[in-house]
Amino acid sequence: MIKARGYAAKHSFSSLKLLEFEREEIKDDELEIEVQYCGVCHSDVHQVKNEWKNTIYPCLPGHEIIGRVANVGTRVTKFKMGDRVGVGCMIDSCGICPSCAEGLQQYCESEEGFLATYNSHQRKPTEEHHTYGGYANNIVVKEKFVLRIPESLDSASAAPLLCAGVTTYSPMKYWQVEQGTQVGVIGLGGLGHVAVKIAIALGADVTVITSNAEKIDAAFELGADRVVFSEDKADMEKNANSLDFILNTIPQPHDVNVYFPLLKRDGLIAIVGCIAPLKAPLDLSKILIDRKTLGTSLIGSIEETQEVLDFCALHNIAANIKVISISEINEAFKEIDNGEVSFRYVIDMATLND
Amino acid sequence: MIKARGYAAKHSFSSLKLLEFEREEIKDDELEIEVQYCGVCHSDVHQVKNEWKNTIYPCLPGHEIIGRVANVGTRVTKFKMGDRVGVGCMIDSCGICPSCAEGLQQYCESEEGFLATYNSHQRKPTEEHHTYGGYANNIVVKEKFVLRIPESLDSASAAPLLCAGVTTYSPMKYWQVEQGTQVGVIGLGGLGHVAVKIAIALGADVTVITSNAEKIDAAFELGADRVVFSEDKADMEKNANSLDFILNTIPQPHDVNVYFPLLKRDGLIAIVGCIAPLKAPLDLSKILIDRKTLGTSLIGSIEETQEVLDFCALHNIAANIKVISISEINEAFKEIDNGEVSFRYVIDMATLND
Repeated sequence: MIKARGYAAKHSFSSLKLLEFEREEIKDDELEIEVQYCGVCHSDVHQVKNEWKNTIYPCLPGHEIIGRVANVGTRVTKFKMGDRVGVGCMIDSCGICPSCAEGLQQYCESEEGFLATYNSHQRKPTEEHHTYGGYANNIVVKEKFVLRIPESLDSASAAPLLCAGVTTYSPMKYWQVEQGTQVGVIGLGGLGHVAVKIAIALGADVTVITSNAEKIDAAFELGADRVVFSEDKADMEKNANSLDFILNTIPQPHDVNVYFPLLKRDGLIAIVGCIAPLKAPLDLSKILIDRKTLGTSLIGSIEETQEVLDFCALHNIAANIKVISISEINEAFKEIDNGEVSFRYVIDMATLND
Repeated sequence: MIKARGYAAKHSFSSLKLLEFEREEIKDDELEIEVQYCGVCHSDVHQVKNEWKNTIYPCLPGHEIIGRVANVGTRVTKFKMGDRVGVGCMIDSCGICPSCAEGLQQYCESEEGFLATYNSHQRKPTEEHHTYGGYANNIVVKEKFVLRIPESLDSASAAPLLCAGVTTYSPMKYWQVEQGTQVGVIGLGGLGHVAVKIAIALGADVTVITSNAEKIDAAFELGADRVVFSEDKADMEKNANSLDFILNTIPQPHDVNVYFPLLKRDGLIAIVGCIAPLKAPLDLSKILIDRKTLGTSLIGSIEETQEVLDFCALHNIAANIKVISISEINEAFKEIDNGEVSFRYVIDMATLND
């Protein structure tokens, strides 16, 4: 067994505290990674607080992991000791269902779905506990689910690309955002601010839609072509029928009806930030009239995760981050929960030794 | 003025009764049509009962009209006296907005939208009343909005193609239903039964989903490959992940969440029968997991209406109908409202003279 330590919550109402635990020794096709940085995703907050009613405690979050290879299994070929690598939201999948065969592991059709980096029941009965994530000094992952980090990327600011990056990149590719597409991004948090950068790099004309007046300046600083303040009816009306595609990153149940008028005919709203029931029934009169559609998208595949890392290296994109020590994590959770941040917190995992 | 007579409702709670009225003389680009048959659409019931809160009384419905040209304006070139013609849901649109320029009159972006065959405010202040539909002995329509009826089609059973036909054909073409597509059709009323025939002619494998056990036989008789009884949980589960595209023809507010599990990954549900708010908020966990989408579609363009008429002639398709006299219309409305019919009532307009 490999000794490990990280920050975990014991109950839905507890703060994250140091947990000492063990990880299984690496198998032939696995790597041990020494975690250097881990991004703090809004879903970490949802999960720790059991907002999706499926949390297994102790809950040790973290799925935006950058680290160095500390040990390799005998059959590992793509990586060697010391390589800088990344781990995102998934660490395994069945590998044989139609979705896995197509390389879409995030839609794994096995009964259990993909194996999440944290909060998943282990598939092998020999494993001692459910999966523990990247708020820890190390992690063990199958080679196939480990990403290469392009040299030009900074470790800390590349971490959020492993979830926020691919979660926004995947739907933009799937729904063909390209040069000249009129893209809207609702919400300017961890996902939204990365989405703006990626959309601009794809050549889109970008409109940020925010209900938080304090984020308007941040949106323009990111390079948004325009910002719509959604609390201002006149502003919403002025921008009616202007967008081809809206990426909706709102992390809480909400009423999506109010955003449909912003779409042009045949436009689509893709929800990527919320996995719960919406707040109000869809008003079909708002969308029937113009053949608009509502779609959803879940993270992205391992191949797309590598693609977004390479894309961001090529376009010199990284998340806007604030590096914190692990002891500051509970304070960061509170700010994220309050919707106050338009960047990503990233934990410097070396601080575990402080 | 042209003398006219038809059946209209004076209030949301009244039955349809004979109304004598006048239509404006035809303009240069208009035709006068002697109405022979008119289909009874579920939306006629909604409109007469003011279920969409926008009915203008008296309400004289009917937008599935087959008749003979009785008079032509001086600039009319496509039709001559005596020609058999059809009129659907629209009789005019602005003609200059981007949607009209693309030939998608149903999405006319002018403030008033398209001019509906009935229940629309007239655009010209000279007109005496709002538009009156096809439950009448005649109608006056601009040439551009009049359809040719292929010779091989029977007049009475072709009438429903002008609304039910194009409303189901248009989304199937837009979302690329073709040879081998696994298509679901929810609801087996006027729209649903035509949808099944068209989907089969397009080469799709067709599953009918119905909550009415009495319609199961009718679905098989129409040629459905399978029927799912939606009240039977086991039947719904057995058919999970089986469909690429679902045409949802339910004419009342409902909970669409229950149908998402029937879709394969990347599948789409298109709502065409309901224009009101849905009954329950969308549960994103049911759709986020598999990149499923929800779309809507509104009737179809004039070009598509001609296309579906020609397509049905080619494939020998017509609606299943029961021809009634106009005096039976109120009884037919009741049956439609109760969801009892898996065919289309069509009024023989000659009975106006009985």
